Amino acid sequence: MFQTFDDSADPSLGLVRLAALRAELARRGLDGFIVPRADEHQGEYVPPSAERLKWLTGFSGSAGAAVVLRDRAAVFVDGRYTLQVRQQVDMAAYEPVDLVATPPSVWLETALPAGARFGYDPWLHTVAGVRALERAAERAGATLVAVDGNPVDAIWPDRPAAPLGRVRLQPLDFAGEAPADKLARLGRILAERRADAVVLTQPDSIAWTFNIRGADVPHTPLPLSFAILRRDGRPSLFIDGRKLGNEERAHLEDLADVEEPAALAPALEALGAGKAAVLIDPAWVASAVATRIREAGGQLVEGEDPVILPKARKNAAEIAGTRSAHLRDAAAFARFLAWFDREAPKGGLDEIAVVEALEAFRRETGELVDISFDTISGSGPNGAVVHYRVTRKTNRPVEPGTLFLIDSGAQYRDGTTDITRTIAVGTPTETMRACFTRVLKGHIAIATARFPKGTAGGHLDAFARAALWQAGLDYDHGTGHGVGSFLSVHEGPQRIAKTGMVPLEPGMILSNEPGYYRTGAFGIRIENLILVTEPAEIPGGDRPMMAFETLTLAPIDRRLIAPELLTRAELQWLDAYHARVLAEVGPLVDAETRAFLEEATRGLG
Amino acid sequence: MFQTFDDSADPSLGLVRLAALRAELARRGLDGFIVPRADEHQGEYVPPSAERLKWLTGFSGSAGAAVVLRDRAAVFVDGRYTLQVRQQVDMAAYEPVDLVATPPSVWLETALPAGARFGYDPWLHTVAGVRALERAAERAGATLVAVDGNPVDAIWPDRPAAPLGRVRLQPLDFAGEAPADKLARLGRILAERRADAVVLTQPDSIAWTFNIRGADVPHTPLPLSFAILRRDGRPSLFIDGRKLGNEERAHLEDLADVEEPAALAPALEALGAGKAAVLIDPAWVASAVATRIREAGGQLVEGEDPVILPKARKNAAEIAGTRSAHLRDAAAFARFLAWFDREAPKGGLDEIAVVEALEAFRRETGELVDISFDTISGSGPNGAVVHYRVTRKTNRPVEPGTLFLIDSGAQYRDGTTDITRTIAVGTPTETMRACFTRVLKGHIAIATARFPKGTAGGHLDAFARAALWQAGLDYDHGTGHGVGSFLSVHEGPQRIAKTGMVPLEPGMILSNEPGYYRTGAFGIRIENLILVTEPAEIPGGDRPMMAFETLTLAPIDRRLIAPELLTRAELQWLDAYHARVLAEVGPLVDAETRAFLEEATRGLG
Repeated sequence: MFQTFDDSADPSLGLVRLAALRAELARRGLDGFIVPRADEHQGEYVPPSAERLKWLTGFSGSAGAAVVLRDRAAVFVDGRYTLQVRQQVDMAAYEPVDLVATPPSVWLETALPAGARFGYDPWLHTVAGVRALERAAERAGATLVAVDGNPVDAIWPDRPAAPLGRVRLQPLDFAGEAPADKLARLGRILAERRADAVVLTQPDSIAWTFNIRGADVPHTPLPLSFAILRRDGRPSLFIDGRKLGNEERAHLEDLADVEEPAALAPALEALGAGKAAVLIDPAWVASAVATRIREAGGQLVEGEDPVILPKARKNAAEIAGTRSAHLRDAAAFARFLAWFDREAPKGGLDEIAVVEALEAFRRETGELVDISFDTISGSGPNGAVVHYRVTRKTNRPVEPGTLFLIDSGAQYRDGTTDITRTIAVGTPTETMRACFTRVLKGHIAIATARFPKGTAGGHLDAFARAALWQAGLDYDHGTGHGVGSFLSVHEGPQRIAKTGMVPLEPGMILSNEPGYYRTGAFGIRIENLILVTEPAEIPGGDRPMMAFETLTLAPIDRRLIAPELLTRAELQWLDAYHARVLAEVGPLVDAETRAFLEEATRGLG
Repeated sequence: MFQTFDDSADPSLGLVRLAALRAELARRGLDGFIVPRADEHQGEYVPPSAERLKWLTGFSGSAGAAVVLRDRAAVFVDGRYTLQVRQQVDMAAYEPVDLVATPPSVWLETALPAGARFGYDPWLHTVAGVRALERAAERAGATLVAVDGNPVDAIWPDRPAAPLGRVRLQPLDFAGEAPADKLARLGRILAERRADAVVLTQPDSIAWTFNIRGADVPHTPLPLSFAILRRDGRPSLFIDGRKLGNEERAHLEDLADVEEPAALAPALEALGAGKAAVLIDPAWVASAVATRIREAGGQLVEGEDPVILPKARKNAAEIAGTRSAHLRDAAAFARFLAWFDREAPKGGLDEIAVVEALEAFRRETGELVDISFDTISGSGPNGAVVHYRVTRKTNRPVEPGTLFLIDSGAQYRDGTTDITRTIAVGTPTETMRACFTRVLKGHIAIATARFPKGTAGGHLDAFARAALWQAGLDYDHGTGHGVGSFLSVHEGPQRIAKTGMVPLEPGMILSNEPGYYRTGAFGIRIENLILVTEPAEIPGGDRPMMAFETLTLAPIDRRLIAPELLTRAELQWLDAYHARVLAEVGPLVDAETRAFLEEATRGLG
């Protein structure tokens, strides 16, 4: 299993470890320290060696921070983790603070005593993040101190070693562009930005550039590493050599100087000493990287990581790969749905059994590299917890008269999937059907949108909500995130959300996942991945328009649809989508699943 | 008439005046100078005394600039004026440059010779604008020089005097809040922003704060003036005393120290000398203001003009006033539509006659203070020119088989209106009806939208375009602008446009004006003003939602609607709107107009 169901709540060590950290800080002459849930690469997942926040406080969420002062300590979490933090963290040691309303940089403004020396690890905070901390320290009359060596590591006796996940080559058939060509393209971008070099610290940027994948963090094939690309001259790749087999080493050495991670700092100083203009992305690059370059005499050019946009625009091979991955995943998912349909009425199913079954169907494809994130498997009221992860303690049975929400995805070598379906168990109520149908209207509005060049996801987000808004309903998450190509299931820069202002471009993959959540009762979400298509002429029109092609192929529960709430065009979309599901997935599955699909995709229009 | 139809094109003096300006620049040791279409207040309209760009180059558009160097000169205009600039400006003297793609600050980067001394008038450029010029000069290796006294004025012998429009009080019945209360509110905002004072340079901010209106520029009741508001202590208002009658002077002296404009500069220096923290809006405040404060020792706090947002949220009295103004305007507009319907088939009408008739109907209300902008009156292909203004030369007859587009508005003491209707002359084509109906669908989508707190116009803009996008059509302007209360017909900060990211708030007034333009053939626009309503509970919903109330009451041409393209809900909206028009406007008009209204508002559903 790629997923565990353990409940890691153990607040008992909180006070002891807090005291140890305070002693270590005192030894170093520091009055406080910040422990973010981050490593040097600022990714969504961190390896066990970087789980300092969890080790210190007990909090295991995917975002947050702790701030430790002499006589106060706070743990910062967002709305998703308000309940969880109280179970995992000793509230006698830490006060909980809302990460969004009062981030550490705001809290510190008033909490830091004047004259205090406040420490941070410059490898774990971005350039922009340190700027916010500096402002806070300045307003408080305190001094911000970059520590040399993380004080948590000094008191963490059994800290795991850094991961050594094996690096694999991503074949050209899937990547679609040779690394040498990508490097040449990036060199031209550097020239445009008047930079001599760029430091890449995001492992997915490095994975894309060199056509490699790794295995250092859960669910995302990232090779933790750093790179320096140069406008002229060979790139340098900083990666633990133990992750490389002979073939991978030969491939990489053909493209770059391959060095150990310890060689990064001297290389940054050499860039600085050479007076290079070095592009860094202040939103992602560790402050320590920028400091080393600047202090050695280099000039920093701030701008977006130049890999982000080329990586987001999938090429023809990546698009073909994602289509294959989705079809394979669709067959496994159809088998899962048919199984659920057979088993649920018998009773005895629970959330964990559902996760296990779905993973098993995906494994049986023979191609599953990993799941793309921990499956969200929510029965009844648990479906209303947007970022729910089932544990042995929270596990609920699948019960008649409820909705079951399952959000899951797979990593295959040719593509990454992410799908959510909401399934009626027994007979749904009228309210459930009305809410589901409004969510579906939003889903269809995105799926069928056409839009001109320059349109961003933030301009389309309201399409997904309009039918809910009319009924006084809404949901508190974005409508869509970008998705990588056998990389991160959450990838920028494009998104369909209020704040998503990056124009959509052909080849970008996004999720389309409106929802509705009634606390204590049920949760609804309908998620397909969609691909931005090339601008096309429309007969009678005078401007080419882009559109979305839906990639995910799985029935949407007909029992939850109130057809009288759909327009004719919406019914037509639904029936056409279901016909496509049957036509494409039907031939790939067993007779029993095929019979299920035939029933589940029958026309409503 | 508030509108003239003269064509002011006279490029013949361009070369002579350019030579005179170059001589004046040489006398002052300058290698170049920039002449923006702006006065000290950065408004949409400027008084004749500030029409330096027009006097120098002949260009009369509402936005643009000229840059004069020793051996080159350029005139910068946006897409609206590409044709006009070639008629009005001597192309042997000036090269035309696209103001949007290559603004002066970009053009100067390469055009300015290294070592050049380039002048600008610091009263005519904002703080942010000067920053852009400084960057350009730095990149070019040139020096930016703030001139003392505008060199154009030195060579403009018959330059008009500054305007002396009579100031009038805006009664509390219309303004809804006493100036003393507004000043107290603004004082609290200053405290929040940690500022001791703010300099107001936008006349509509000053008009709102002191409940006065003026008559210094066309179509907008602005009193050109400056003000300093203090967190503690009396405000200062800098205005030519000749604009004030006894009553107005008494009202203002009760609230503020009233001084002549010449006293502004010393007052700014006094603020600086007192080490005050002074709030200025870098997007609006003249660079000269900021410089004087800073050089005298003051501290600048940059932030939005604190009047903008309170002014945008109309209070109950302002809302009641705008409803009255719209009803009055609707009666005049209904008479106009009935007249057009009678006269157009007879032949002999032209664009100018239509403008004259509409203004006459509005005058007959006895309440018209001004039109709110020059009427756009476009017959056939002229309707496709988005910012068309008819002149004797361009005047076209009203002809059968065409569409007539009329965009106009009025200034009444209780409110400002802005309405566009597109009228079929004779029988429209199927294409015209299909396009019109798609524009109407967008209009209805905005009119019926509901949305939660935090939603900005930029999130809703696509609602107005979705039906057009589906057909491969679009329009190249925003969907809606803010509107003042007997103030500017274009008012921020809210707008419905891709870039409009200010959250909509109850009491804000906007236009709802999607369109479609087929060059050389026809133009379509349907514009009503709408009011953002308070959040309301919706039965069955769990979140209060805001909505729009349509303020404008005039029939939408039924002959242009293809009902089969409308949903049932859209037809219901249209029929209900038309019923409301008849019920509210019918009782205010003569029998003939009433008969017209009855026909024009008949149900389609």
